[in-house]
Amino acid sequence: MLAEIVTIGDEILIGQVIDTNSAWMAEQLNIIGVNVTQITSISDDREQILDTLKQAATHADIVLITGGLGPTRDDITKQTLCEYFDTRLVLNEDALRNIERIFVSRGYALTPVNRAQAELPEACDPLINAQGTASGMWFEKENKIYVSMPGVPFEMKGLMQNFVIPRLAARNNKVVLHRTVLTQGVGESFLADKISDWEDALPSYIKLAYLPQPGIVRLRLSGRGKDKEVLQQELNNRIDALYKIIPDYIFGEGTDTLEGLCGNLLRNQNLTLATAESCTGGYIAHLITSIAGSSDYFKGSVVSYSNEVKEKVLGVSAGSLQNKGAVSEEVVLEMAMGAKQLLNADCIIAVSGIAGPGGGSPEKPVGTIWICLITPEKTQTRKFIFGDQRDRNIRRTALAALAMLHRALA
Amino acid sequence: MLAEIVTIGDEILIGQVIDTNSAWMAEQLNIIGVNVTQITSISDDREQILDTLKQAATHADIVLITGGLGPTRDDITKQTLCEYFDTRLVLNEDALRNIERIFVSRGYALTPVNRAQAELPEACDPLINAQGTASGMWFEKENKIYVSMPGVPFEMKGLMQNFVIPRLAARNNKVVLHRTVLTQGVGESFLADKISDWEDALPSYIKLAYLPQPGIVRLRLSGRGKDKEVLQQELNNRIDALYKIIPDYIFGEGTDTLEGLCGNLLRNQNLTLATAESCTGGYIAHLITSIAGSSDYFKGSVVSYSNEVKEKVLGVSAGSLQNKGAVSEEVVLEMAMGAKQLLNADCIIAVSGIAGPGGGSPEKPVGTIWICLITPEKTQTRKFIFGDQRDRNIRRTALAALAMLHRALA
Repeated sequence: MLAEIVTIGDEILIGQVIDTNSAWMAEQLNIIGVNVTQITSISDDREQILDTLKQAATHADIVLITGGLGPTRDDITKQTLCEYFDTRLVLNEDALRNIERIFVSRGYALTPVNRAQAELPEACDPLINAQGTASGMWFEKENKIYVSMPGVPFEMKGLMQNFVIPRLAARNNKVVLHRTVLTQGVGESFLADKISDWEDALPSYIKLAYLPQPGIVRLRLSGRGKDKEVLQQELNNRIDALYKIIPDYIFGEGTDTLEGLCGNLLRNQNLTLATAESCTGGYIAHLITSIAGSSDYFKGSVVSYSNEVKEKVLGVSAGSLQNKGAVSEEVVLEMAMGAKQLLNADCIIAVSGIAGPGGGSPEKPVGTIWICLITPEKTQTRKFIFGDQRDRNIRRTALAALAMLHRALA
Repeated sequence: MLAEIVTIGDEILIGQVIDTNSAWMAEQLNIIGVNVTQITSISDDREQILDTLKQAATHADIVLITGGLGPTRDDITKQTLCEYFDTRLVLNEDALRNIERIFVSRGYALTPVNRAQAELPEACDPLINAQGTASGMWFEKENKIYVSMPGVPFEMKGLMQNFVIPRLAARNNKVVLHRTVLTQGVGESFLADKISDWEDALPSYIKLAYLPQPGIVRLRLSGRGKDKEVLQQELNNRIDALYKIIPDYIFGEGTDTLEGLCGNLLRNQNLTLATAESCTGGYIAHLITSIAGSSDYFKGSVVSYSNEVKEKVLGVSAGSLQNKGAVSEEVVLEMAMGAKQLLNADCIIAVSGIAGPGGGSPEKPVGTIWICLITPEKTQTRKFIFGDQRDRNIRRTALAALAMLHRALA
């Protein structure tokens, strides 16, 4: 099965928005064994939309369309789809109820423009969008599938996960299996060196992909075959072998996150956590509290961005700040101990570092980070030197701290 | 002048890489008045490349191609271009010297594969790539311009800046100008209703686009014309009128962010800020500290995720927590006053709410948020009811709080 992705909207063509949707969609399609042959971005232009759909159907079995479904006049995808499929707009009751539900929950009154969003092409199978007012639309014509979805990333993702991926997977009969292992604290090239023998020994029907992100490298193993059980067994054997080669770097699989895994460990062990953050500015607390139910184990945080707060709230000594500097083993240790006392948690993460771009010196360059972890068993400190990009340093510091916690509790 | 961008390579089609090149190229082209009509990503496939180039030349005057120029066998762009332009590869001395220079500077010996990179189509005008070994290639055929460049972002950018943009700018004489206004606290459809008369009165050469994100809607006005000054004046007049219609919703323009604008206001007014966060879990502090130099005005935060921390650290009264609940005007006010005392800042943002998915009740559904803002002039509290998605509630709460601060200081 071959797919083509068509994105509609000027914001990509004028470079105001980077098309992250297509990469996500391509990845999801790949997982169920659907190959993307082309990604095309076009503008909200009737003729171009009609022409692109016609072209796409000549090379692909499935055409996934995003964008151009907003309530405003510049969004013409729905009308143009009516023309392409020779159908007309009719009011869809399910879509209307969904729109009403969303408006009621937000406390807004329904406007005529929004009501018009419930008018959908008669020929389509509507995909109700739980996250927004623009419905997805599933069409079939001359043995080709067309799906139109809104361009707002989380709305598109909801429709893909709830409808499109399961339906396409059910129609595809090739077995494609994946297992993705997550590593932290090691670069892509170092990892590639470490596992090169293992990689070379993979059979031709199992492929490895390196998927690097700041601080994390995902290793995805994809197998294609006929017999699901045989293939799954083979994948599992390969992954088992991988765990033996790099046990210290693997922290999870699939959609695991360090904040989620740490949360599970804390909950299962009946432990609480608090943080004291300087250079990460609350980002570690944000990651932890992005997990629903984190109030079960997370007590809170002191973001001590100024030395005054480090001293007054966390009780860091003026002497340590003066003699060793805010980015030092002494200070991060005192921050952790102060937070333990104040926030009364079993485990403490404390970090202090130079996120950049300013504040570096020859002895402590930008990217220098100290982390202290207190668990019921022990107290440990570690120094890291990351790079010179502020946002990446914040992210990598948070992941390194969570990885320390995960290793200590696992 | 119309352009089409063609990217060649499987990494985008399998979702391993997000295509950031095209957005950058489109933005650069837009600035010199060249419109991008289509962006097409295809694989390293001879037939697909030939077909795509032929198609592109039917709608565009300029075809910009990236990728597929590496030294390895899967990169077939150069050979395919020879076929398309009916020419052959010949050794180019300038390209060879450039490759040799790069190899010497890296301390590597030249291999035959790399020497072959100096072989270029005879019909092209070579664009020497100071950053890498793959040359750019400029072709003209039947009044159309084709430029092939490597896909490595900084190599492509060097060639665009040194050759492609200056050459195209010299050939184009149309003016394109944009102004983008940022609004907060209002939905796309509500906004569309509010400004419909203004929108209807726009002349045909000025176009409006709605670009929504969670909590923020961007309004982009694009004008096309001959005389830059006249067009700029016209755009400015339209935007001035827009400010008069929705003064309360506009917070900035272009690449402004609420956290950046608040930071500038705080710095200019010599004020400090601290936060007390419950449901946002440190996300407001994270946004504020994502701005380089925020230590000039941000003192810190208490993330009081548990009632214990609200009481013990921020001094919220047990009575208010018991009688009114953690998500109440009383508690958010006490949190703010406690934080003001403890963190000793001029301005305080305090938030408490139910991010979800759990924790809601009929009186206080998921998405109920209280925000308190203290500035030197006054103390105010506001209640919001957002939706049922945890991550969006966190994001919208943070933006609403920053918008309150921005309005109070601006």
